[in-house]
Amino acid sequence: MAYYKEIKTEKLKNFTIRIFLSYGFSDEESFIITDALLRADLYGIESHGVQRLIRYHNEVRNGLSDVHGKPEIINETGISAVMDAKKTMGQLAGVKAMNLAIKKAKENGCGMVSVRNSNHYGIAGYYSNMAADQDLIGICMTNSEAITVPTFARIAMIGTNPIALAMPADPVNFSYDASTSVVTRGKLELYNKNNEALPDQWALDAAGNSSTNAREVLQNINQKAGGGIAPLGGVGELFSGHKGYGLGIIVDLFTAILSGGLTSNHVQTIKGLNGICHYFMAIDYGIFGDKAEIKRRVSTFLKELRESKKAEGQERIYTHGEKEVEMMSIRKNGFIPVNEKTYKELLDIAAAQGVVCDFD
Amino acid sequence: MAYYKEIKTEKLKNFTIRIFLSYGFSDEESFIITDALLRADLYGIESHGVQRLIRYHNEVRNGLSDVHGKPEIINETGISAVMDAKKTMGQLAGVKAMNLAIKKAKENGCGMVSVRNSNHYGIAGYYSNMAADQDLIGICMTNSEAITVPTFARIAMIGTNPIALAMPADPVNFSYDASTSVVTRGKLELYNKNNEALPDQWALDAAGNSSTNAREVLQNINQKAGGGIAPLGGVGELFSGHKGYGLGIIVDLFTAILSGGLTSNHVQTIKGLNGICHYFMAIDYGIFGDKAEIKRRVSTFLKELRESKKAEGQERIYTHGEKEVEMMSIRKNGFIPVNEKTYKELLDIAAAQGVVCDFD
Repeated sequence: MAYYKEIKTEKLKNFTIRIFLSYGFSDEESFIITDALLRADLYGIESHGVQRLIRYHNEVRNGLSDVHGKPEIINETGISAVMDAKKTMGQLAGVKAMNLAIKKAKENGCGMVSVRNSNHYGIAGYYSNMAADQDLIGICMTNSEAITVPTFARIAMIGTNPIALAMPADPVNFSYDASTSVVTRGKLELYNKNNEALPDQWALDAAGNSSTNAREVLQNINQKAGGGIAPLGGVGELFSGHKGYGLGIIVDLFTAILSGGLTSNHVQTIKGLNGICHYFMAIDYGIFGDKAEIKRRVSTFLKELRESKKAEGQERIYTHGEKEVEMMSIRKNGFIPVNEKTYKELLDIAAAQGVVCDFD
Repeated sequence: MAYYKEIKTEKLKNFTIRIFLSYGFSDEESFIITDALLRADLYGIESHGVQRLIRYHNEVRNGLSDVHGKPEIINETGISAVMDAKKTMGQLAGVKAMNLAIKKAKENGCGMVSVRNSNHYGIAGYYSNMAADQDLIGICMTNSEAITVPTFARIAMIGTNPIALAMPADPVNFSYDASTSVVTRGKLELYNKNNEALPDQWALDAAGNSSTNAREVLQNINQKAGGGIAPLGGVGELFSGHKGYGLGIIVDLFTAILSGGLTSNHVQTIKGLNGICHYFMAIDYGIFGDKAEIKRRVSTFLKELRESKKAEGQERIYTHGEKEVEMMSIRKNGFIPVNEKTYKELLDIAAAQGVVCDFD
């Protein structure tokens, strides 16, 4: 993909912090939101990075995200909590909830925090990695507006509902972070932009049949006219789409059901409330044995996978998290690329907020 | 599929118990193994039912499963334990480990038990449903001999590594139980038997390319000549095969890594030891709020999914667990169908063990 601009990471970071300060968030809050947001760009997952700033801008401006919302703990045990995010930014709810899960894991072996009434929080892997950075297993899930169609259905009822899991390993942590749909909306948008036919089994038309027409599928999604994205495993049962569908339900159980919030099919249907729900879990794997020994075993297993025999024509076998760590090492003290649309949006947001934009 | 015989469930149950008694298992042990084994047939998952009796028979007779093996708890906290199954039957290790997880969940909110040095235990859903029957969330995973090929690789390094999760709901519990591979070996065997070409993306040849030749793939698997089954999501990344690959790794982390046992790629490589590893978790969802209220919310969500608009030509949208419960209600006091090969195997086992076979 051709990028329009490369912005110095440090400058983009300072700019993003100033934007969130301009909305009325505190220094600490603005830093947290920015750190979570830019991590996606640092990992090379641009779909979830500053490209989304315009969305957050709009949600703050129209009140979907409440600058003054303060998350509240609704109930709590030594290993669990339910949080009402009170419409704060998803990143603020997320960091608070994962820190609580981490604290409980350190004190009692594991911590599970289910969160309701939140907003988009960026990449699930940001939070699971918070736990891994503290030498714990981290798990994170979120629901989102329904865009995935259950097996044999024709209406989107489940979000892309990602599951993330991170576990410490050498030389690089295992870090899985993936939607339970076959692909995310961003992939469809790319095919649409390039006027390419979608691979069969990615998406469904309004009647619930497999569709390769990216434009039509996206239009239907936007107009809630039916169809949407297939669960991981595709349309129907031939490639086990019912498995991705089931995994998507599981995400809603831990996020929306346990927290008492909105399931994917109700997210964004209540006026003025996104209502997105998250789940955070940390496990001190030391409760299962010597941590150094366990970490050595994970590292060996992952190495065996990476060093197994490659398929014809392939140059490398990855374990999950490697690509992101490698990209971050390049971009951290370097540049973050943005496309033309995003660049213009950043300038517009800067103008709207009266924030100086010194990217050049 | 045409069946050869239908055996009265009660007779098949009594027969199976007598077979396990004949190996030297106690009354209680023989009952437990039989209950787990036949549950697969009752659920309509014949691939994991009495069809497998010949495998268990051989494993007991050649010492892979140790009739006198007594599982030991290696270490334990209020919410966790590691069990060395001591080569006992997987069903015995599984029921013991899940009962321990359930006990911990009732006392302390959650229980996690990771098990090493075990054997095949039947269907993962049997154990997750043990927890759901006690009004808890149940999670169960197992690794198995490597048959799944990592993304971009050409050698099977991961088992079919199923994940099961059950949660109480009305009128029928949610019960997910699925491998993290696109399909299991049984499906390939069915295509082979029928001389049909496999769907593209199900399996890989010895060079790591997608193969539709069921016979060749099965031969390669048996001879460990390379290739195998694709992860959920298929070969390569186009349909997100890297997601199924990552979920398979996660199963090995909870089963083999936390227990200190063998990862999938080492299972059945040590002489005289299958070395299969399991993971069991129970969560008292009451730690998140009023249980009746939470159960009502799950039930509503699942109902909304089932009652959403069906795809063209489809008659029903399922939630996970419905098919199994419906099949069990028919077969419980009725008959269990077996194919000709299985029927002959049952007669052979009966003869070998001197057990009377009164199926007619």
